Amino acid sequence: MSSERLIYLPLGGAGEIGMNAYVYGYGKPGKERLIVVDIGVAFPDMDTSPGVDLILPDITWLKERRDRIDAIFITHAHEDHVGAVAHYYEALRAPVYARRFTANIARRKMSEHGHPDEAVTVVQAWPEQIKAGPFTVAFLPISHSIPESSAMVIDTPEGRVIHSGDFKIDRTPGVGEAFDDALWADICKDGVKALICDSTNVFSPNAGRSEATVGPEIETLVSNADGMVIATTFASNVARVKTLAVAGERAGRSIVLLGRSMNRMVEAALESGVMTDFPTRIAPEDARGLPRENLMLLVTGSQGERRAASAQLANGKFQGLEAKEGDLFLFSSKTIPGNERGVIRIINMFSEKGVDVVDDSSGLYHVSGHANRPDLEQLHSIVKPQILIPMHGEHRHLREHVKIANAKGIKGVLAVNGMMIDLSGNEPKVIEYIDTGRTYLDGSVKIGALDGVVRDRIRMALNGHVTVTVILDADDSPLGEPWVDMMGLPEMGNSDSPLADVLEADLAQWLNRAGARTLRDDKALNDGLKKVARQSANDEIGKKPEVTVVVSRLS
Amino acid sequence: MSSERLIYLPLGGAGEIGMNAYVYGYGKPGKERLIVVDIGVAFPDMDTSPGVDLILPDITWLKERRDRIDAIFITHAHEDHVGAVAHYYEALRAPVYARRFTANIARRKMSEHGHPDEAVTVVQAWPEQIKAGPFTVAFLPISHSIPESSAMVIDTPEGRVIHSGDFKIDRTPGVGEAFDDALWADICKDGVKALICDSTNVFSPNAGRSEATVGPEIETLVSNADGMVIATTFASNVARVKTLAVAGERAGRSIVLLGRSMNRMVEAALESGVMTDFPTRIAPEDARGLPRENLMLLVTGSQGERRAASAQLANGKFQGLEAKEGDLFLFSSKTIPGNERGVIRIINMFSEKGVDVVDDSSGLYHVSGHANRPDLEQLHSIVKPQILIPMHGEHRHLREHVKIANAKGIKGVLAVNGMMIDLSGNEPKVIEYIDTGRTYLDGSVKIGALDGVVRDRIRMALNGHVTVTVILDADDSPLGEPWVDMMGLPEMGNSDSPLADVLEADLAQWLNRAGARTLRDDKALNDGLKKVARQSANDEIGKKPEVTVVVSRLS
Repeated sequence: MSSERLIYLPLGGAGEIGMNAYVYGYGKPGKERLIVVDIGVAFPDMDTSPGVDLILPDITWLKERRDRIDAIFITHAHEDHVGAVAHYYEALRAPVYARRFTANIARRKMSEHGHPDEAVTVVQAWPEQIKAGPFTVAFLPISHSIPESSAMVIDTPEGRVIHSGDFKIDRTPGVGEAFDDALWADICKDGVKALICDSTNVFSPNAGRSEATVGPEIETLVSNADGMVIATTFASNVARVKTLAVAGERAGRSIVLLGRSMNRMVEAALESGVMTDFPTRIAPEDARGLPRENLMLLVTGSQGERRAASAQLANGKFQGLEAKEGDLFLFSSKTIPGNERGVIRIINMFSEKGVDVVDDSSGLYHVSGHANRPDLEQLHSIVKPQILIPMHGEHRHLREHVKIANAKGIKGVLAVNGMMIDLSGNEPKVIEYIDTGRTYLDGSVKIGALDGVVRDRIRMALNGHVTVTVILDADDSPLGEPWVDMMGLPEMGNSDSPLADVLEADLAQWLNRAGARTLRDDKALNDGLKKVARQSANDEIGKKPEVTVVVSRLS
Repeated sequence: MSSERLIYLPLGGAGEIGMNAYVYGYGKPGKERLIVVDIGVAFPDMDTSPGVDLILPDITWLKERRDRIDAIFITHAHEDHVGAVAHYYEALRAPVYARRFTANIARRKMSEHGHPDEAVTVVQAWPEQIKAGPFTVAFLPISHSIPESSAMVIDTPEGRVIHSGDFKIDRTPGVGEAFDDALWADICKDGVKALICDSTNVFSPNAGRSEATVGPEIETLVSNADGMVIATTFASNVARVKTLAVAGERAGRSIVLLGRSMNRMVEAALESGVMTDFPTRIAPEDARGLPRENLMLLVTGSQGERRAASAQLANGKFQGLEAKEGDLFLFSSKTIPGNERGVIRIINMFSEKGVDVVDDSSGLYHVSGHANRPDLEQLHSIVKPQILIPMHGEHRHLREHVKIANAKGIKGVLAVNGMMIDLSGNEPKVIEYIDTGRTYLDGSVKIGALDGVVRDRIRMALNGHVTVTVILDADDSPLGEPWVDMMGLPEMGNSDSPLADVLEADLAQWLNRAGARTLRDDKALNDGLKKVARQSANDEIGKKPEVTVVVSRLS
């Protein structure tokens, strides 16, 4: 007999920052009914995923069980939580639930993929509950750097589970709901089986600061500025966008929004009602005639993205507006590790224009949206779970978070992507390891991260590429000599002859000496010519290129 | 009549961090005798220079004037100051001067390139002076994160110029010379024409800390550790390496050096006499039998370099030694912007092994080797130059440093790479713009950064590569159909057919419709086939690959 069990399975976000995707299940082993919490993306980089557009979780396991999925819940509208929802809607075909603002963003994504609004159901916050198979699920407001972020209160036959989503504890968040101590205490008062908890800031030792502390600093900065002020932050940080806009308005400046997502997020916040009193905006074309000291631009591109408004302004004009000597550029944002080079590039370009750049280094103009270590401990104390499973973090974050839990007498469980945990009974257990990974959206096609496609691209980037062409007649005799076409390789080698000439001479020599058996054998020819080309290049330029051999046989 | 003039020309390092190369000249315009201060390298990355081994300054201008170069002076042995000296020795053929330790490192490089020891002349510190054309030059000790760092005191017919080199003001530096206030005051007492000054830490607002503050913290950490301790820092930071080793020794641990540069730098420091009393080391093979709590490994790889000892230990064994649960790994170093991903990767790999990692975030276990803003101001006050030219920094650093100088009544001059400044008379002037840039060491070949070679590699990494082959007979008629070979592209496209099949069908269709004039014209064929292949791929996979067209004509 196999009794029913409660399982937890991270498919993304546990062992990395980004690409969150968590599965809960209840039922007999192998027949659990499933719900999914968040289905986000991660972003590619040149080092590991050149040419890739977006990184999605590998949902092979879920697809094979899609008839058992009762619902997908989205905690908030950040890309690393909602970004894959439209890409996988057809594959999973499960109803998607989200609160108003999140649903607004999710529906825009669905619509871009041709899916209807009905794909996403709007849910109110607690006390509304959604029945999803054996689960009863509610959205419990929690503060974060985007409106209507929510923890999920998941009631199961094994007890209540709380999935924190991304959060900080902010009692004065500006836009959106303050952390409600009384409500949280009430919801947790009858005992919580497990807290699945954000871990990204576990190494930040000091208590986090409220969004409200940022406003006065920004107002001082903006009111002391002489020229035009340009400020950037994540567009989805609607509270910050508003703080910036209000600071501009109070300093007698007209507000201009630049960049697609900046406009879209402010619209979504107004449409969904999470924000009501945003300062009047003017269009870029109306701003051109105004004195610089009466302008404040709120722009996309806080991470140095090459096509965003900040990069374009650093480069030259954007929508007719231009930064000039004496202007001020404010990064009201943190640079995500890996994006430093892009951000620094923009700062230097502004420096060349004589624009003063203020960034986060003073700590005055930005606060994090995630709970620092003392804030995590505060949540642990409020929730008092039997079990704590850290999520959303690299291995080092999860491990540290487990240590904190254990030190406080809470059973900490380190579960990375693919580890299925049985939460039933008294002792959580790892019961299965699921193959997980990453799926690349590459142009319009989805490919596996380990398919070898991207590996080949990286090799061409490191080593360059040579095409070797050989034509053989009907008797398997070479017709003329082999020739090469190169890409990404220097024209001249160490012997001061054109590299192509040297390769062709070496290839011709090899081909002349090749026996009849080799000439008849495509694989032997291919291997031989490739080896000669690589060795010859290595002698000439100290580098072994990737080689494509094209053998044409006339018959 | 054109009178003689004193010129300053940065060829690298002014507008970037790394790749330092500065030229001073004196004489009639266009006939100045020249000296070079430092000739360093920068390091490549996947984003901008995939496959490149090393980035060197473009010395075209210098090569064309090499008969006018009287000497090359190297301030210290960091790669970004000495790294290009052997690569350019043949091109410049000028005598190289350095102090003992720096010369030791420079000679190792010369020797790797087959150049004799005599290529580098060892010079004592001030008061020894070298006559170099119209210049008299001395090495003035200044503290930094490597032994025997020196400022250059350059006496010219226009007065004394001081080139700071990289520095901090450290009166208790551990290994090497303390900053000597009396000596500096004496050297500057008769007036200094210009101070050319390190700018890298100009945005750090607090006074820098001495190397001596690090020792006690590291000792506490190491003596409290239970398992094996592994520590990394820049190997060239010999003072830190010694601090770490002494901390290990005091905690009753045997010291093992791992990694080529770690061994080489300690050897160089002992050989050149800058360090005398380094704790006894044991060989890795002797360490294997010892209890873990009696071991301390000092390893290379503080920047997460993939092949360094730290990465190999994170991955598995290195020279028979292995990190295990309960061990401690210390980054006694700062992560250079751009290297975050590599460092974080290693931290997570250690985390998976159960190894605790301590990094610089607490500020306890590392101090910078560069002067922070208050330290820069201190040097300005000691030197009291008429003119201050910031060097070694990105544009933002140079600009900020100029502001600081101007605020104190010193004439600040912002000179980036390629700007030739006339320092004669009372008013410094930009008199010429020299084309500068970067030279890539790519395998064993030097190529220009803008030659297009690396651009093509980046394109292949982003877009993949297709070879299209077509054979035409003597009458310019296609012999069979075109075919394609792909690299770095998905096998299947959106139509669920193999991508190669779709491309070949589209190419065949185009070729069948091509007129006789197109078939006779290689360029028209090439352009047409390339366009079709790119368009066809774009329809199928949403991506336009790089295309090599190979047209073979039988005759």
